[in-house]
Amino acid sequence: MKNELVNYILNHTELSNELENIVIESSNIRTYKKGTLVLNEKSIANESFLVLKGCIRSYLIADGEEKTLEIYTEGQPIMPKNYGKELPTEHFLECIEDSVVNAGSKAFEEQMLQKYPQFQSICRIIGEVIMSKQQELFFSYKLASPEDRYLHLTETRPDLLQRVPQYQIASYLGLTPQSLSRIKKRLLN
Amino acid sequence: MKNELVNYILNHTELSNELENIVIESSNIRTYKKGTLVLNEKSIANESFLVLKGCIRSYLIADGEEKTLEIYTEGQPIMPKNYGKELPTEHFLECIEDSVVNAGSKAFEEQMLQKYPQFQSICRIIGEVIMSKQQELFFSYKLASPEDRYLHLTETRPDLLQRVPQYQIASYLGLTPQSLSRIKKRLLN
Repeated sequence: MKNELVNYILNHTELSNELENIVIESSNIRTYKKGTLVLNEKSIANESFLVLKGCIRSYLIADGEEKTLEIYTEGQPIMPKNYGKELPTEHFLECIEDSVVNAGSKAFEEQMLQKYPQFQSICRIIGEVIMSKQQELFFSYKLASPEDRYLHLTETRPDLLQRVPQYQIASYLGLTPQSLSRIKKRLLN
Repeated sequence: MKNELVNYILNHTELSNELENIVIESSNIRTYKKGTLVLNEKSIANESFLVLKGCIRSYLIADGEEKTLEIYTEGQPIMPKNYGKELPTEHFLECIEDSVVNAGSKAFEEQMLQKYPQFQSICRIIGEVIMSKQQELFFSYKLASPEDRYLHLTETRPDLLQRVPQYQIASYLGLTPQSLSRIKKRLLN
C-alpha cells in the first residue's frame, strides 16, 4: 500500500532512493470504512489527504440540500476548505467506499521540509501540476453545457458512474437528478 | 513599479532583505498597450505573468464565439493553459487596459531556484494559496445560481463592472448578454 504514495510522487517528478525511503517511513496511512465521515463542516481541517484506494466525496449543505463539490478517487489529493486555518471547514468528507488514504498536516509538512529540504521542490512541482489540472477542470466546467459535462465525465472518469449513486453524480455535475435522467435518455436515443 | 512584485510576495510570506533585492533585480517588468494580444491560441505559452497594473482577459474561441475564462487584475497570477509544455496554449490573453506585468518562465524559475534555493519554500507557499483560492472559486461558481454569481462579482470585484465591457462580464459569468441584462433589471426592481 505504502508504495502508492511513492508512485504518486514518481508520476510527477523524480525521487532519489533516499527520499523514497523517507516517504515510506513518514507516510501516515489510514483506513476508513464505507460511510465514514472523515470531516464534518464544523471541524477544523487539520489534515489533507491523498486517496490511495477507494472513493471519498466532499459536499456541503446549502438550503437543506447536499451539494457535491468533488469526488476523489485513487491518486487524487484532497485539500479541504480552510485547511490549516483556525476556522470550521464548512465542508463534509464522506467515504463512498472503504478507503485508504495518506494523511498529512501543515505542521508535519513544515517539519519534514525543515528536515529534508529536498522535498521543497517536489512539493512545488506537484503543486503546480495540481494547480494546472484544477484550472483546466474549472474552465471546462464553465464552458460545457450540462450534456457536455456528463459526456466529459463518461470519457474521463467512467468508473465514477459505477461507484457513486446517481443523485450524487447529478449534484457533482451541477444538475438535478431529473435533468441528469433526461440527459441520459436523450443520449441513448 | 518593481516593488509591487515584492509586495505581492510579502502579502503571502516573509522575505529577507537579501531576497527582496534579488526579487527586484531579477524582475522582468513588461508594459502592454490596451488591446495587445499577449498570447494567441496557437502560440506556445513559455511565460506566466503577475499583473502589476491593468486588466488582462483570457478567453478561447468555441463555435465561433469568444468565451471569457478569467479576468485578471492587480495582484493576480496568470498561468496560461499548457504553460511550459510544447503544445499550443489554446487560449488568448488580451489587455483590456494598458497593463504592466512581471513575466516569468519555467527555465528562468528553475535557474533562480537552483541559485537561490530559499525561493523554493516561497514558491510552494504562494502556490498553495493560489491553489486554495482557485478551488474556492470553482466550488462557489458551481454552487451559485447565475444571479448569485453576478451578486458575488459585485461584492468581491466591483471594479470589474467598470473596467470590462458588459458582454465580456456576461461571458465570464457563463451567461449570455441578454441573461445578464435580465438579471440586472430584476435586481434593480
